Amino acid sequence: MGKDSPMFNQSVDKGLAILAAFGARNRQMSLAQIAEAVGITRSSAQRIVFTLDTLGYVTKDPYTRRYELANKVMEIGCNYVAANPLIESANPFLSAMNSTCDETVALTEPCGTNMVYVASFTSRKPIVAHMAIGSRMPMYCTSAGRAYLAGLPDEEARTLLRESEIKPLTPATLLDPETIFAQIVESRARGFSMNFEEYMLGHMNVGAPVYNKHGRAIAAVHIVAPSSRWTREEVTGKLGAMVRECAGAITNAVRAH
Amino acid sequence: MGKDSPMFNQSVDKGLAILAAFGARNRQMSLAQIAEAVGITRSSAQRIVFTLDTLGYVTKDPYTRRYELANKVMEIGCNYVAANPLIESANPFLSAMNSTCDETVALTEPCGTNMVYVASFTSRKPIVAHMAIGSRMPMYCTSAGRAYLAGLPDEEARTLLRESEIKPLTPATLLDPETIFAQIVESRARGFSMNFEEYMLGHMNVGAPVYNKHGRAIAAVHIVAPSSRWTREEVTGKLGAMVRECAGAITNAVRAH
Repeated sequence: MGKDSPMFNQSVDKGLAILAAFGARNRQMSLAQIAEAVGITRSSAQRIVFTLDTLGYVTKDPYTRRYELANKVMEIGCNYVAANPLIESANPFLSAMNSTCDETVALTEPCGTNMVYVASFTSRKPIVAHMAIGSRMPMYCTSAGRAYLAGLPDEEARTLLRESEIKPLTPATLLDPETIFAQIVESRARGFSMNFEEYMLGHMNVGAPVYNKHGRAIAAVHIVAPSSRWTREEVTGKLGAMVRECAGAITNAVRAH
Repeated sequence: MGKDSPMFNQSVDKGLAILAAFGARNRQMSLAQIAEAVGITRSSAQRIVFTLDTLGYVTKDPYTRRYELANKVMEIGCNYVAANPLIESANPFLSAMNSTCDETVALTEPCGTNMVYVASFTSRKPIVAHMAIGSRMPMYCTSAGRAYLAGLPDEEARTLLRESEIKPLTPATLLDPETIFAQIVESRARGFSMNFEEYMLGHMNVGAPVYNKHGRAIAAVHIVAPSSRWTREEVTGKLGAMVRECAGAITNAVRAH
């Protein structure tokens, strides 16, 4: 099954692994570096990179003679956004909430034990960190992740927490799965989840789950509240109600689809 | 050379072609539909789709039993954004301009005869159309495209116009390449390019080119001004100067890199 199946094509695997190996830390790579990053032979890397270059997904920098991603790779990620009716349904509600609170609001979807950004509207005020579409953050220590977990049956939420690599990202990060699970249960009753600087210092967050028509959580909406502009009381009082209402409106729009 | 070379790998080509075949109009596809969209045999489609499914890039909808993209494909497009120092340099300037004019501002890069959105900050006011990161628009009829063309040597700009599939997208679209080229030459002197509802009714735009340290245009900044909120005179007078200044600041930041 899977990768051991005779149906599985190694070249497709290598091609996608090479594209996925580039990033902020590996902006440009030589063939030898690509081969090492992906764990394939140099001659295999050469063949696949030649193919990716011919197709226009990577280019060779004429100055450094190393390879880098070409913007054509964005077509693929973009297709996901274009093909996702949830994002289309959510955009007007996210945009409206962004106008009301003037803070960054985002829609994230689960991917393994992470949440991935699929839409976001940025605050016009100074922001601590810009999370681009496609970037991901762990479920266990973020309001969006906990909101999503709160929208799942207990057993599934516990399994995802068990599979998470829990580690302290700030001094405030909760590390005990049972404490995190208790937070999730509380947030279910409250209608929104919180995280006070557990993922990033300076960032408080509230998030609420979006459900599909079968009543299953499929995404989360969250607001990023910098601690320089908001108190904990304002975040839970004012922004919590706002994010709960926004996620509810998106859920209704998705169900009407 | 290229696709005929013995170095070229057909499976990698097919894998990426399948991922690129999904979109708003082909959100879900059966194996037969995938094979037809990409122009490959059904058994070949089956092998590649099995591989993409195993790797987590596509999933089978349990209700319709057809395939769709999984959000893991966003990792690849996201890497381009994360690995692009231009976007990082540009974000603070785009964000500041978005605050000042409170209209949608974006950074686009050339891709063939199109410009592709690599960063954008959305207006908090009602907007006509939301262009997601990764979406593309033609060069010949947009302020961003014309700004980029204005930043190229004449012969390169003419070649790109010649390769463009020029067609009327609105009643206002300019169709004569020489008239468009004259506009480009004018905008070079002015420092910004314009488009008044040529790409989309209700949208006026101004754009200016961003140059790399070798003095070559590599991107464009543009502002979207809905005709419901702005007159032509305000767009050219006020927003034109703003976008020219913003693109200049990004160019300086890129050169300092």
